[in-house]
Amino acid sequence: MEKPDTSIAAKVVSMVSVIFVVVSTIAMVINTLPDLAGPPDEKGNPTDNPTLSIIEAICITWFTLEYILRFMGAPEKCAFVKDGMNIVDVLAILPYFVTALIMESNIIPEDNEDFDDVRRIISVFRIMRIMRIFKLARHSTGLQSIAYTVTHSYKELALLVLFMGMGVLIFSSLCYFAEKDEPDSKYTSIPATFWWAIITMCTVGYGDIYPTTALGKLIGVFTAISGVLVIALPIPIVVNNFAKFYNETKKKQVQLARKVEKEKWKIQEEQERRRFLISIGEIKE
Amino acid sequence: MEKPDTSIAAKVVSMVSVIFVVVSTIAMVINTLPDLAGPPDEKGNPTDNPTLSIIEAICITWFTLEYILRFMGAPEKCAFVKDGMNIVDVLAILPYFVTALIMESNIIPEDNEDFDDVRRIISVFRIMRIMRIFKLARHSTGLQSIAYTVTHSYKELALLVLFMGMGVLIFSSLCYFAEKDEPDSKYTSIPATFWWAIITMCTVGYGDIYPTTALGKLIGVFTAISGVLVIALPIPIVVNNFAKFYNETKKKQVQLARKVEKEKWKIQEEQERRRFLISIGEIKE
Amino acid sequence: MEKPDTSIAAKVVSMVSVIFVVVSTIAMVINTLPDLAGPPDEKGNPTDNPTLSIIEAICITWFTLEYILRFMGAPEKCAFVKDGMNIVDVLAILPYFVTALIMESNIIPEDNEDFDDVRRIISVFRIMRIMRIFKLARHSTGLQSIAYTVTHSYKELALLVLFMGMGVLIFSSLCYFAEKDEPDSKYTSIPATFWWAIITMCTVGYGDIYPTTALGKLIGVFTAISGVLVIALPIPIVVNNFAKFYNETKKKQVQLARKVEKEKWKIQEEQERRRFLISIGEIKE
Amino acid sequence: MEKPDTSIAAKVVSMVSVIFVVVSTIAMVINTLPDLAGPPDEKGNPTDNPTLSIIEAICITWFTLEYILRFMGAPEKCAFVKDGMNIVDVLAILPYFVTALIMESNIIPEDNEDFDDVRRIISVFRIMRIMRIFKLARHSTGLQSIAYTVTHSYKELALLVLFMGMGVLIFSSLCYFAEKDEPDSKYTSIPATFWWAIITMCTVGYGDIYPTTALGKLIGVFTAISGVLVIALPIPIVVNNFAKFYNETKKKQVQLARKVEKEKWKIQEEQERRRFLISIGEIKE
Repeated sequence: MEKPDTSIAAKVVSMVSVIFVVVSTIAMVINTLPDLAGPPDEKGNPTDNPTLSIIEAICITWFTLEYILRFMGAPEKCAFVKDGMNIVDVLAILPYFVTALIMESNIIPEDNEDFDDVRRIISVFRIMRIMRIFKLARHSTGLQSIAYTVTHSYKELALLVLFMGMGVLIFSSLCYFAEKDEPDSKYTSIPATFWWAIITMCTVGYGDIYPTTALGKLIGVFTAISGVLVIALPIPIVVNNFAKFYNETKKKQVQLARKVEKEKWKIQEEQERRRFLISIGEIKE
Repeated sequence: MEKPDTSIAAKVVSMVSVIFVVVSTIAMVINTLPDLAGPPDEKGNPTDNPTLSIIEAICITWFTLEYILRFMGAPEKCAFVKDGMNIVDVLAILPYFVTALIMESNIIPEDNEDFDDVRRIISVFRIMRIMRIFKLARHSTGLQSIAYTVTHSYKELALLVLFMGMGVLIFSSLCYFAEKDEPDSKYTSIPATFWWAIITMCTVGYGDIYPTTALGKLIGVFTAISGVLVIALPIPIVVNNFAKFYNETKKKQVQLARKVEKEKWKIQEEQERRRFLISIGEIKE
Repeated sequence: MEKPDTSIAAKVVSMVSVIFVVVSTIAMVINTLPDLAGPPDEKGNPTDNPTLSIIEAICITWFTLEYILRFMGAPEKCAFVKDGMNIVDVLAILPYFVTALIMESNIIPEDNEDFDDVRRIISVFRIMRIMRIFKLARHSTGLQSIAYTVTHSYKELALLVLFMGMGVLIFSSLCYFAEKDEPDSKYTSIPATFWWAIITMCTVGYGDIYPTTALGKLIGVFTAISGVLVIALPIPIVVNNFAKFYNETKKKQVQLARKVEKEKWKIQEEQERRRFLISIGEIKE
Repeated sequence: MEKPDTSIAAKVVSMVSVIFVVVSTIAMVINTLPDLAGPPDEKGNPTDNPTLSIIEAICITWFTLEYILRFMGAPEKCAFVKDGMNIVDVLAILPYFVTALIMESNIIPEDNEDFDDVRRIISVFRIMRIMRIFKLARHSTGLQSIAYTVTHSYKELALLVLFMGMGVLIFSSLCYFAEKDEPDSKYTSIPATFWWAIITMCTVGYGDIYPTTALGKLIGVFTAISGVLVIALPIPIVVNNFAKFYNETKKKQVQLARKVEKEKWKIQEEQERRRFLISIGEIKE
């Protein structure tokens, strides 16, 4: 069950898992559509769509079952619990049960403030449901490659963050001092200017905040150009790491598939030999 | 006629085909200019420009003739019909005839609702006319290369879609929960937030929707940076596939041209030898 | 004078030329600043700043002198006139004289309409003055490299244009049909939508025009992603051509410099030998 | 103290330095938040937050002490003062003292105009405080790599600037002449149009200024595409320089670490040998 490439049953289970993850994610996403929300409860609070709630419950049941079966089948319980992918599995199930628990225990909130706190906590746990999308990583070479890339290129990614951080700091400070005295300036403080600097360095450029003075525009030009350079510098190193791991994993999968094929063929041969020996009376069934 | 590089006649036909494709596409495009529309009919519906309609009819006639001649010249009818480029040819002609057919049969629409349905169907078929632009692929190495790249890099493109899809899902969910409680927030639901996430990850950044809270902006920063990374990772693999096929096709074309030259030279030599043998009376004409 | 690397005098002339190009370009640019414009003439038309006009006249004089001297020094007049860089030189001077000529001959415009035509023609020639910036190409390896790249990668650049053109056509058509029925839609015709498609495919995204319907947004997403891919595909080929030529030119310059050094050394040696021979009375001065 | 990799004490000092730089930068940044500003003084001028002022004073004290100790420990005072990193150290301390000096000497400003001048000078020195962030370069291989890249790829960066400069000049001029006659045009002069051209060429596209005429849009398209090309051309050369130096520095660090390890081991061996010789009475302590 741990290696989905080795048998048909495992493949089916893997397929079903992927489908459940996709379905529950879609359910979670369309649950936020105003048109699909259920009727408001007696206090006017928005409620979930009943059909989607049922789908969610089914998906969670499957995830829980899958985790329990896997746990029971694991030879070393401790190593199993600590494994990265299994932690993701737990994080995919947990928010649902925690939310349910809080809802149950706080059914009659005395204080309004307490109730607000509870709602905020529930809200955070609802967001955490999106973590289940990482369950797909168990079934995708590409996602494993990206996880590998991130963990093995962390130095280069740290460099990218350092470069961008320094660029953001310097250009934000300069642009803030250039723009702060303009009437109706949106450059109200250096931290507020960070947003502008990053969005410019990534060449997104929403246009919600942009320099208006000549000096500010000059700084904006340097921000944009240095953004292009700073992003371009460490990316080739990261990309190489990704390509290397991706190609290696693909090769390994091909080798594994061949090995499995070979094993099957050996077993078949052995059986045929047995059958032949039985047929000529050499050995007994 | 299938290999446009081999003879002068084929080259001319190929040239004419390209011109007709370009002309009909331009006609289709400028047909949507309000200044060029024909006078409205008795019911006030917009009509096509009469000159452009005639051009369209001529182009379609050529495309149909070309297809029929090709079909008649093909040795295996079944393989011909199934061939990718020939399907494109059919798709380039079909919308015109289907539209004409519907227009004819529904000339006196009884019911207004039915008429609306008909108009919608016609509208879809009108859009499908743009498919004829793919007919150019028969005449361009570059377009064949891109088609080859897309079909042979589908795994990497799927990876790109998977990465972007996951990024969009996660960042949309997070940003939706961060922004939804703002007054006049444009983050009305997670699917509506998808648009923001993709436009940010591709670094387009229209600025029609952008986060306004500090938390939302922080998520926006991660969205932009991860967009740059996620797009950068699988592209080199796709680009390599493209460059490989493009260079190979260019080489093949050069080889083909040389081969044709050689054949021509051989035929010429043979003819000269014949003429010489005739001249010395060795063989008879 | 044709090869600025070979002697000190040529270097000085080259330097002065560059300075004049830069100065005249700056003069032309700041001439458009409203604060620097001269007092309006008796008819209220804007006039040039007198100081800038003098600078312009000096620069043009230098350019004209330079061209005439070069022309007189050239061994083959015909080849000289046809040379790419010399055509640029002519284009840098011509607009000034043509403008002056028109101004002189039309000093008392009878008809207002004629005057408008003249003003439009003068305006076009004024824009053409910017062509003088290409004179810098004579003095910069980098600019020669880019010119070489553009002429030797024209197939790949044509491919880029073809890809973008097809993408723009298809996505514009689709988005136009998706958005045209919206109230206050900015997608008024397919040619008007071209602007949106290109600005999205280049990931600029001004935000002056963007889809608002769900279908239009879906098409927008494909436009943005295909833009990233389409631009990424032919660029490495173009970049390689540039890097190759740039490195070769740099090598050649180093070799040329060495050769010049060697020649100088040889001449010096020869002179010393002569002087020695004279000193020992072997040869006469 | 100059080479932070060689001993534990040096590592601790280096660590403390980094922390002080980070803390003082954060203090400087959040000092601009309106909520954190101190109460306005008697004349209604904004004042610094008192806590942040103390933090700033402590950080500056550390930086000054560090520099003085380093200076005293340096064998060649002249070379020390001229070293790049030590200049950065001075630039990190200086603004604070200059500001303090000006504040002290101008405690009772007679003239309002003079006071404004002083405030402007102080403001500039306040911005210069951000220079201290470059002190981090002493402790980061990545930042040294980027400094090395910038100094060794200055030719390619100059090329990038030249390309962009020419593109900006040409497209600004053209777009200015295409757009200037529009009512409410934001293309008021060529220098004002520079901003648009650069922001378009870097594909940022804020949307604060964009062409509205057909001709202007056509020029805008060329600006965007040439921007993508112009930025793509010299970047691979710059990126290669960066990757080369980055990998070399990483290797050197590993070698240095090994060497230090070896030296330690040698010293230990020597000591053990001594102890052994002492123990057998061969040599005296």
